[in-house]
Amino acid sequence: MLTTADIEAAERRIAGRVRETPVLAVEPRAFGTPGHVLLKLELCQHTGSFKPRGAFNRILAAHPGPAGVIAASGGNHGLAVAYASRELGIAAEVFVPETSAAVKVARLRAYGATVNVVGQHYADALAASQARAQQTGALVVHAFDQPEVQAGQGTVAGELDRQAPQVDTVLVAVGGGGLMAGIATWFAGRTKVVAVEPERIPTLAQALAAGRPVDVEVGGLAVDSLGARRISAASLTVAQRTEVLSVLVSDTAIAAARQALWEELRIVAEAGGAAALAALISGAYRPAAGERVAVIVCGGNTDPGDLVTP
Amino acid sequence: MLTTADIEAAERRIAGRVRETPVLAVEPRAFGTPGHVLLKLELCQHTGSFKPRGAFNRILAAHPGPAGVIAASGGNHGLAVAYASRELGIAAEVFVPETSAAVKVARLRAYGATVNVVGQHYADALAASQARAQQTGALVVHAFDQPEVQAGQGTVAGELDRQAPQVDTVLVAVGGGGLMAGIATWFAGRTKVVAVEPERIPTLAQALAAGRPVDVEVGGLAVDSLGARRISAASLTVAQRTEVLSVLVSDTAIAAARQALWEELRIVAEAGGAAALAALISGAYRPAAGERVAVIVCGGNTDPGDLVTP
Repeated sequence: MLTTADIEAAERRIAGRVRETPVLAVEPRAFGTPGHVLLKLELCQHTGSFKPRGAFNRILAAHPGPAGVIAASGGNHGLAVAYASRELGIAAEVFVPETSAAVKVARLRAYGATVNVVGQHYADALAASQARAQQTGALVVHAFDQPEVQAGQGTVAGELDRQAPQVDTVLVAVGGGGLMAGIATWFAGRTKVVAVEPERIPTLAQALAAGRPVDVEVGGLAVDSLGARRISAASLTVAQRTEVLSVLVSDTAIAAARQALWEELRIVAEAGGAAALAALISGAYRPAAGERVAVIVCGGNTDPGDLVTP
Repeated sequence: MLTTADIEAAERRIAGRVRETPVLAVEPRAFGTPGHVLLKLELCQHTGSFKPRGAFNRILAAHPGPAGVIAASGGNHGLAVAYASRELGIAAEVFVPETSAAVKVARLRAYGATVNVVGQHYADALAASQARAQQTGALVVHAFDQPEVQAGQGTVAGELDRQAPQVDTVLVAVGGGGLMAGIATWFAGRTKVVAVEPERIPTLAQALAAGRPVDVEVGGLAVDSLGARRISAASLTVAQRTEVLSVLVSDTAIAAARQALWEELRIVAEAGGAAALAALISGAYRPAAGERVAVIVCGGNTDPGDLVTP
C-alpha cells in the first residue's frame, strides 16, 4: 500500500530532476466560483505535464540495465519517460496508440526515444510494449500502475502542501489514476480530494460503482491524456480507502475551462489539464463559501491555435 | 522624484485589485544560460499584462469625477484602464493607434470602454486623447509618464522582492519606461536592473546616448506593446540615477525567446513580454555563474496560433 513515506522517498530521489511548479491564487470572481481558488501550474513541468515525477522515480528506484526502459502512453507519460531517459543517459522505447497527437509523437522522437505507433487505444499500445519488454529485458515504466510511479506523482501534493499549507480541497483529473492515488495518499485524512473525469472516460466512477476496476469506452476531447480504459486496482483502493469524491464533467465543460484559462490567465492547458477546473466552473463540484480549493492544471501539451482570443 | 515610499503606498492602494503573480524558477540548462533564472509571470495579471497596477494606482489616487478617465495606449495600458474603470464603476475612453492588434481593440470594447482608433503611432493617439480630455474634463491616465502610474508598476518589484529576496539582477523590457522606472526605483543600490529594448524601438538607449529623451523610429515585432516613440524624462532620470544597464535585442531574438517560453514552459508571451528573456537567451546580457536573475515576463496579449509546437 502506497504511503506518505514512499512519496517522501520519491521527493528525495527526484530532487533537482523536476521543477517546483508555481501556484497562482485567483480571486473568487475570476471563474465565477465560490471559495478561494489556487491553481497548481504543473503544465510548466518538464515536457509539459506532471508525468516526469513518476517516470524519474520509477527509473531511479530500479537502476535499469543496458536494455534501458520501455513504456506505453497516450503521449504525456511517453514524453516523460523519453525525457527522463535522455537526462539519465538511458535508452528508451515508447509505444503509443494512433489517437496520440502528432505533436507528441514528434516530440518523443526529438527526445531520442524509439517510437512505435500501435493500435487504436492505450491498451493496445500497452500490450505491445509488454510483449516487447519480454524480448528485450527493458525496464517497464507503467503510465500509472506501479507504486514508484504513483509515489512520484504524489510529489505534486507534497510540493503543493509546502507552497499552500491551508488547502481544504484538491481537484485532480483522473485517467489511469496514478496522480490521484499519489495525491490522495498524501492528503489522506486531512484534505478532501475530488477526482474529476470526463463523462466519456469514467474509469474511476464506474469502478467505484462496480466495486472493482472495469473497462470503459473511451472518447472525447481529453482522450489523448486521460484515455486509459481501466483504472488500476491500486488507485481504486486508494480512492475507496481515502474517500475520494468522484465527479464527472462534460466535454463542453472541459472546452469552456480551457478557454477560460486562456482568457482570464493566459494559460494554455490541454483538455485533460483543464478537466479539474471544469468541475469547478461547471458546478460539478461546488465548494462552500470560504473553502480553499487547489486545482491541479496537470498538462499543457496542446496546439494553442484553436483558442479563441476574444 | 519617485521613491520606494510611493511604491509602498501604491501597494496598499491597489491591494486586492491586482493578482500576486507567480514566480517560476527554471534550471540553468532550460534556456542554455548561465546563472539561476526566475521568471516573474506577470502575464497572468488581470488583462494579460502588468499595466493594471499603474492604472489602478493612478485612478484610486486621483478620485476622478463623473467625466471618468481617458487614456491613450498601444493596447495593454488601454486594456488595463478599461478593466480598472469597469471594476471601479467609472466611465473610460481609450485612444489607440491603428497598429494595435484587433484582439486588443475588441477586448477594450468588451470591458465597456469607448474606443477611438486614431493615427499610425502611439504618439498620434496620445495627442488626440489629450485634446479630448481638454473638452471632457476626464482624468488622464498616462501609459507611463505619471508618477502614480510608475509607482503602481513598481509594485511588481515589491512583490518579487517578497517572493524571491535573493535576486541579484532584474531584466525588464522598456517601452515608455514606466515599469523600468518603478522597478529601478524599488531596487536602487542593491539589485542590478537591466533594461531591455528591441533594436527597432531603442527609446532608452538613444536617450542615454543623447543625455535627454529623443524621438526614435518605432517598428518590429514588439511595436504593439513597446511602441512608444520617446521615453519619459522621469524614466530617463531614474535610469541614469540608478545606473540601469541598457541592452538591445533583435526581433529574431525576441521571436526565439517567445518560442522557447512555449516549448520549454508552455508559457504564451507576447513579443514585448518575451523581450527581457531574449536578452538572456541571445547573450545581450550575460550573467555570471551563480548570478540570480529575475526576468519579468510582462505580457501575454497575443494570438498563440503562430507558435510552433515541434
